[in-house]
Amino acid sequence: MLQNSIITMLSDFGDRDVYVGVMKGVIAQINPYLSVIDLTHQIPPQNLAAARFCLMNACPYFPAGTVHVAVVDPGVGGQRISLAVEFVNGFLVGPDNGIFSGVLSQTPAIAAVVLNNPLYWRSAPSNTFHGRDIFAPVAAHLASGVALKQLGQEIDPATLVSLALRECTPSSTGINGCIQYIDHFGNLITNIPQSYVLDKTWYVEVAGVSIPGHQTYSDMPTGSAIALIGSHGWVEIAINGGNAELQLQLKLGDELRVKI
Amino acid sequence: MLQNSIITMLSDFGDRDVYVGVMKGVIAQINPYLSVIDLTHQIPPQNLAAARFCLMNACPYFPAGTVHVAVVDPGVGGQRISLAVEFVNGFLVGPDNGIFSGVLSQTPAIAAVVLNNPLYWRSAPSNTFHGRDIFAPVAAHLASGVALKQLGQEIDPATLVSLALRECTPSSTGINGCIQYIDHFGNLITNIPQSYVLDKTWYVEVAGVSIPGHQTYSDMPTGSAIALIGSHGWVEIAINGGNAELQLQLKLGDELRVKI
Amino acid sequence: MLQNSIITMLSDFGDRDVYVGVMKGVIAQINPYLSVIDLTHQIPPQNLAAARFCLMNACPYFPAGTVHVAVVDPGVGGQRISLAVEFVNGFLVGPDNGIFSGVLSQTPAIAAVVLNNPLYWRSAPSNTFHGRDIFAPVAAHLASGVALKQLGQEIDPATLVSLALRECTPSSTGINGCIQYIDHFGNLITNIPQSYVLDKTWYVEVAGVSIPGHQTYSDMPTGSAIALIGSHGWVEIAINGGNAELQLQLKLGDELRVKI
Repeated sequence: MLQNSIITMLSDFGDRDVYVGVMKGVIAQINPYLSVIDLTHQIPPQNLAAARFCLMNACPYFPAGTVHVAVVDPGVGGQRISLAVEFVNGFLVGPDNGIFSGVLSQTPAIAAVVLNNPLYWRSAPSNTFHGRDIFAPVAAHLASGVALKQLGQEIDPATLVSLALRECTPSSTGINGCIQYIDHFGNLITNIPQSYVLDKTWYVEVAGVSIPGHQTYSDMPTGSAIALIGSHGWVEIAINGGNAELQLQLKLGDELRVKI
Repeated sequence: MLQNSIITMLSDFGDRDVYVGVMKGVIAQINPYLSVIDLTHQIPPQNLAAARFCLMNACPYFPAGTVHVAVVDPGVGGQRISLAVEFVNGFLVGPDNGIFSGVLSQTPAIAAVVLNNPLYWRSAPSNTFHGRDIFAPVAAHLASGVALKQLGQEIDPATLVSLALRECTPSSTGINGCIQYIDHFGNLITNIPQSYVLDKTWYVEVAGVSIPGHQTYSDMPTGSAIALIGSHGWVEIAINGGNAELQLQLKLGDELRVKI
Repeated sequence: MLQNSIITMLSDFGDRDVYVGVMKGVIAQINPYLSVIDLTHQIPPQNLAAARFCLMNACPYFPAGTVHVAVVDPGVGGQRISLAVEFVNGFLVGPDNGIFSGVLSQTPAIAAVVLNNPLYWRSAPSNTFHGRDIFAPVAAHLASGVALKQLGQEIDPATLVSLALRECTPSSTGINGCIQYIDHFGNLITNIPQSYVLDKTWYVEVAGVSIPGHQTYSDMPTGSAIALIGSHGWVEIAINGGNAELQLQLKLGDELRVKI
């Protein structure tokens, strides 16, 4: 049995209930030698776009073979398919609702299966908590060396659900984008990748204000707005020593433009 | 020394202080090969009913031999007894204040001891943090193979403190119950077990509204109220894609009735 | 390769983003057999005094050789130095901004290095997330047995940044102090160490009120204010079964006096 293989968990379960702990118990019942790492359980309830973004930014930093379980699952118990996907850096386990479409846009799927082999589930799964009854046990078996194709019927990865998200669009006057994520510090993360601004002089126009592009927070005085390339490779707006969301009064989806 | 035995932790310590981390440090000082899994540390301060409910719902999902440490402990440093209890699925360690009475109502105690052998404590325990000074080290020793009876004097499990909680009551017109727990999603979990409604047609009456019993969230349109059997086996009221606590304006303890 | 060595993590990253999970992934890429324990990630953004206090109170409870990574880092990407420090109980890794000055006031540094050997970083570190790109990999290498002096150039520990904090001052009428930390329960932790009150009869004067010194919470009736020696060895003000911050309307920095 493989030891110290890694399973990550991402969900909208929050931290006040025992849902996450119970999933870890189910994993330990199958293989107590696995390591479980929490990505976050504070995805806003049923917010697939935030889940997709977080998972996409985290997956590259894990060892090959890591199994990522993601449970933001408004359709649980209904018609949506349960999935396991193999990609170049490991495996993805969760509902087929687009939650994996960010990871798979960066590192395409190698193979995918529908989780229809109950041999790898808990017996008598509920209709409301597939995280515990299907995804956690399947992940534990995958991380313990069970082959993907044992878990269910193969499907064409091209048929997986993809989230329709706004993408940034270059125009003659700059790159038009929007705020796709706001982090704990109030940093405003746009949907404009770093490739547009690397090695250039650039600034962001948002809500009638121009914000200069720099290298790091402390390139501007404390309390000043700054644009920079954030740690996951997106153009980001921050306040040195402050909270850009509060101070600039901007919110998810607000539009902006990068100018070179 | 046993490796990868599991200790779970449940408390009202929250996540902003180092109390939980310190307990894990104390465990690692005794045996760094143990695995610690957090159930939750967001029990409302000193709320024994919520702690009892969460622990009761989590214990069945862990491997045999797991040691569950629970520290919601308003009487710390006073007259209440410190306990370790053996039950069929593992061990319970914490104060004798009723926190274990849910688990033990489902899977009775095999043996119990008062933790009065200081050999298994940290030296010079404080009066305010038995989690660190008594419960964590005792749990680490238990999970490492120390026998229950080494930890202190045996007592009759029938003498343990039990919480007096409202139970549901069947009547000629239905089953009267109340909301015993509200989860992160705003799902309203009643004190009515699934045995009353399994394989029946049923609905819930609450605050002048009738809510139909169904199989899963997506059996009702998005935004509609639904009654179902929740993942831990209790009748539950939810909103498909929404928050029942906010939308129905219900709260802990509110009364309701299941009708068949 | 060392197994089950321990790395702790403390930061102001909160729990809604994947920053902490990503640091754990980076550690696992280097050595999947290490154990990572979270101290807290809820330090208020950029609050070095709270970070210093929490770290100082947690370090004594971990096994010898533990590596403590602390990332509250408003100066990231600027001129501040990155550090690894050896002290009697293990190692400290993080920015040189005073975050370690509490630990080192209790257990002096044995040796310190500037982290200027990129062999132990992730390649191409960002300017905004040294936690992921420098501190996590350095900690993983240290915990795996790499010698401190491999990590960079030695510096004199006496030159490390120290936070200038208010200290308590004895006078003819008592010991003047202030509230230096408020925990999740609303307990008010002062900057007056237990050595002033041990084995004495004492009380606290604050905001015109006298609060008697006792042994534990339940020495006063439920709802009453009590002064005691908290679990980390500081004079503390609490409400038995309640929240002293809310009930006494006190806040961080408020002044008080202990009288013997």
